[in-house]
Amino acid sequence: MKLQIAIDRVSLEQAELLTRKLAPYADIIEAGTSLIKDYGFQALERLKPAAGAAKLLGDAKTIDEGAYEFRQGYKHKADLLTVMGASSVATLQTCYDVAEASGTEMMIDLLECRPEKVAQMVHFPNAIYCLHTSVDQGASVDPNQEVLAFKKAFPMIQRVAIAGGINLETLAGMAEANPEIVIVGSGIVKKDDPVSAAKQFRKVMQETCKYSM
Amino acid sequence: MKLQIAIDRVSLEQAELLTRKLAPYADIIEAGTSLIKDYGFQALERLKPAAGAAKLLGDAKTIDEGAYEFRQGYKHKADLLTVMGASSVATLQTCYDVAEASGTEMMIDLLECRPEKVAQMVHFPNAIYCLHTSVDQGASVDPNQEVLAFKKAFPMIQRVAIAGGINLETLAGMAEANPEIVIVGSGIVKKDDPVSAAKQFRKVMQETCKYSM
Repeated sequence: MKLQIAIDRVSLEQAELLTRKLAPYADIIEAGTSLIKDYGFQALERLKPAAGAAKLLGDAKTIDEGAYEFRQGYKHKADLLTVMGASSVATLQTCYDVAEASGTEMMIDLLECRPEKVAQMVHFPNAIYCLHTSVDQGASVDPNQEVLAFKKAFPMIQRVAIAGGINLETLAGMAEANPEIVIVGSGIVKKDDPVSAAKQFRKVMQETCKYSM
Repeated sequence: MKLQIAIDRVSLEQAELLTRKLAPYADIIEAGTSLIKDYGFQALERLKPAAGAAKLLGDAKTIDEGAYEFRQGYKHKADLLTVMGASSVATLQTCYDVAEASGTEMMIDLLECRPEKVAQMVHFPNAIYCLHTSVDQGASVDPNQEVLAFKKAFPMIQRVAIAGGINLETLAGMAEANPEIVIVGSGIVKKDDPVSAAKQFRKVMQETCKYSM
């Protein structure tokens, strides 16, 4: 299990500082959609050196013009980029092709995707499928059950991530479902002491899943 | 019928120059998603003075964090902002509330939205519903029929726009469907002489729909 820490709705200076502080406890640092829309893809290049050994994900939330956006994200130093599952399958294919060719990874954000739609896009073996409850809708009640149900429904999908309202308690309950990536945003970044919060998440993750850094 | 000219995949300097040249022939200048993701929402402020009397639309393609993105777009001088119809209804409602409160207009991009989804979001009387064929999928075969079918299926929706591969020929055929807004991007902006192309679109629009500037 890997920890992805999402940074959102702060200035670029704050984002850089947070990245520097939090990267030692993260496998992936996420430059949130708000950073990309506030500052453009150049935000990625600004955060990249601060991320150190952690990978950098650009939460581009691409939904059209897949080739252009993924090429721009790669050019600006993203290791991973997101595309919406709500995109056309043609867009998903385009993004996947660019990701594969450039050595970046594609994460498919499954926000508002019905199972029928997911069934149309199970043919991207290296993609990460991210279960995501909308910020505007509130958090998932039981992320463990959500991941388990998804893995059961789509056994051919190997790589699963989950985002949306993950806290220490729900994280502790995720040993069974064992998603590849757990994404935490405000649960770490908006705390008074984000580093301490990141350490706690890391500790619970290790205890729960025998995760070794 | 109004003409919205979309500017995409150029430098901010070129976008400003194109806006200055094309705004006299446009009702709405669109700062495309590529400009927002390449340069951030500040791209809007850069284009606003160049747009003159034309309104400025920020193609934010919001799909989550509706309040934050719409407030940022408004702060950076957008007159209209887009949200994806593929968003949760909660996100659409949030965007609509911010738009109504701030005096901006919300355009719902119906990319990849099935009729069942559209039926869940017909309750935004001031919103503009944009029929949109993905760049990655290719253009709509018959935009006139597409708008007519949409208006028949959703007679309660008053404001309809259409985007995706509109050319002079398909525009000439849209008198019957008469959408409120026709969105043209590369059909104008990528031509050798964009101003001449914009004038041609304007002329055909006037002839077809007795549109007066």
